[in-house]
Amino acid sequence: MEIISENRAFGGTQGVYSHRSHSTHCEMTFGLFLPEEAQHTPVPVLWYLSGLTCTHENAMVKAGAQQWAAEQGIALVFPDTSPRGDDVADDDAYDLGKGAGFYVNATQKPWAPHFRMWDYIAEDLPSMLQEEFALDMSRQSIMGHSMGGHGALTLAMGLPGRYKSVSAFAPITNPTASDWGRKQLSAYLGDDEATWAAHDATVMMRDKGFDGPLLVDTGTNDQFIDLLKPEALAAAVAERRQEGILRLQKGYDHSYFFVSTFMEEHIAFHAEALYAD
Amino acid sequence: MEIISENRAFGGTQGVYSHRSHSTHCEMTFGLFLPEEAQHTPVPVLWYLSGLTCTHENAMVKAGAQQWAAEQGIALVFPDTSPRGDDVADDDAYDLGKGAGFYVNATQKPWAPHFRMWDYIAEDLPSMLQEEFALDMSRQSIMGHSMGGHGALTLAMGLPGRYKSVSAFAPITNPTASDWGRKQLSAYLGDDEATWAAHDATVMMRDKGFDGPLLVDTGTNDQFIDLLKPEALAAAVAERRQEGILRLQKGYDHSYFFVSTFMEEHIAFHAEALYAD
Repeated sequence: MEIISENRAFGGTQGVYSHRSHSTHCEMTFGLFLPEEAQHTPVPVLWYLSGLTCTHENAMVKAGAQQWAAEQGIALVFPDTSPRGDDVADDDAYDLGKGAGFYVNATQKPWAPHFRMWDYIAEDLPSMLQEEFALDMSRQSIMGHSMGGHGALTLAMGLPGRYKSVSAFAPITNPTASDWGRKQLSAYLGDDEATWAAHDATVMMRDKGFDGPLLVDTGTNDQFIDLLKPEALAAAVAERRQEGILRLQKGYDHSYFFVSTFMEEHIAFHAEALYAD
Repeated sequence: MEIISENRAFGGTQGVYSHRSHSTHCEMTFGLFLPEEAQHTPVPVLWYLSGLTCTHENAMVKAGAQQWAAEQGIALVFPDTSPRGDDVADDDAYDLGKGAGFYVNATQKPWAPHFRMWDYIAEDLPSMLQEEFALDMSRQSIMGHSMGGHGALTLAMGLPGRYKSVSAFAPITNPTASDWGRKQLSAYLGDDEATWAAHDATVMMRDKGFDGPLLVDTGTNDQFIDLLKPEALAAAVAERRQEGILRLQKGYDHSYFFVSTFMEEHIAFHAEALYAD
């Protein structure tokens, strides 16, 4: 692991690190905020998965999350959204290839074997973090924005027992029925739609749900709301009687101004779950 | 005036606007955060002047200021740091020309007549804001970061009675004695150093001081601290018996992680002065 930068922030440290990933077979960069408490004791971990076109950096500098994580004594992990490097496949479109990993393990050429973001978030990065930092990996929660909200929801339901709570800002909720989803799942996983179901939050909510609290915020003026389909997840949550809070926030759009506005509440929500027992 | 974008944030609106400036003779872009209260009543105004290489955007997306301005019912103005456009002179160095206006009125070629950032902040932008938005221009305060801290301090002392309070993050405090200053003041104002004194916060503090409260934060690990010279301003403040708080913050550097960490306290400090009478 290599230290790219470390900046003091809110009494803790905002670091940026890079490491060789066994999942994506390339050098990966991530951000990690450690609150002051991490100097003395392992702290709970809250994952933040970012959206299309983002790197590890966007949320780290724009979401205003560190202040609330510092207040709660929680670490924040900001992974990248795809493999990187000259030998990694890409596409001219902003929503496929680099910056658009969709948190799946690609099985199709040219995306396999680098595009294995599910394994990277589920296995590779957590074991590296556990080795290198003072983190209590028995207390993890996950959140994300847009494509990262999709990632947070599907990882939370796909790895039962791993995360204490899950939240999302403007998540893609039903990718198997959206232009933000069908194109990418087809490219990464192939045309057999049966393989897509494990990466659709609405389908997973119908099938299995999440064993813990759920919080989802979407802006009523979100310019991508027809692609996000909050109504699909809302119906599935209600049908399942899933413990959860789904909010439509008047006038907010898809930007980080929206995300930062509700960040305090999301981190307080996760803190309650992370410190529950 | 043209609307570039408007995003709902913290119950208010973060806007970006452009207008033709009579001071800089070019199109200028600025950010303006209006809290919810501005829908009903004119609100106080807090200026944020940015540092070298910045545009109107950096602080707007990275400083985390809107949340505290929303809490206090205060508007935030984020001006650009220089004139812009193809017919505006520039320099290969990051610290001269575009992105490096230093908040002075240039008298020297090729910088005159576009580089008139003092007049832009002191006259042009305020009168435009007063015309277009629900702002209480009798209640203004000013803050800034690095070169913008220099701008905030010199404008506050150079325009007595204009601002209720002044604060700065890692300001350039003594440009007439620093490599961040001598080069630019010489380029913009010419070699007669007598003209530089009106743009040096330490000199101005010795000569006249500020009629109101002052707050300055600088990180002990600031990588540019030898150029900032906090000791020069500290001595001048103490010699003058100027009302003020000067803090050296352990371990913090020059970044927006530092700025955002102390933003809540700076905005609370200004709110106290803005609502004092």
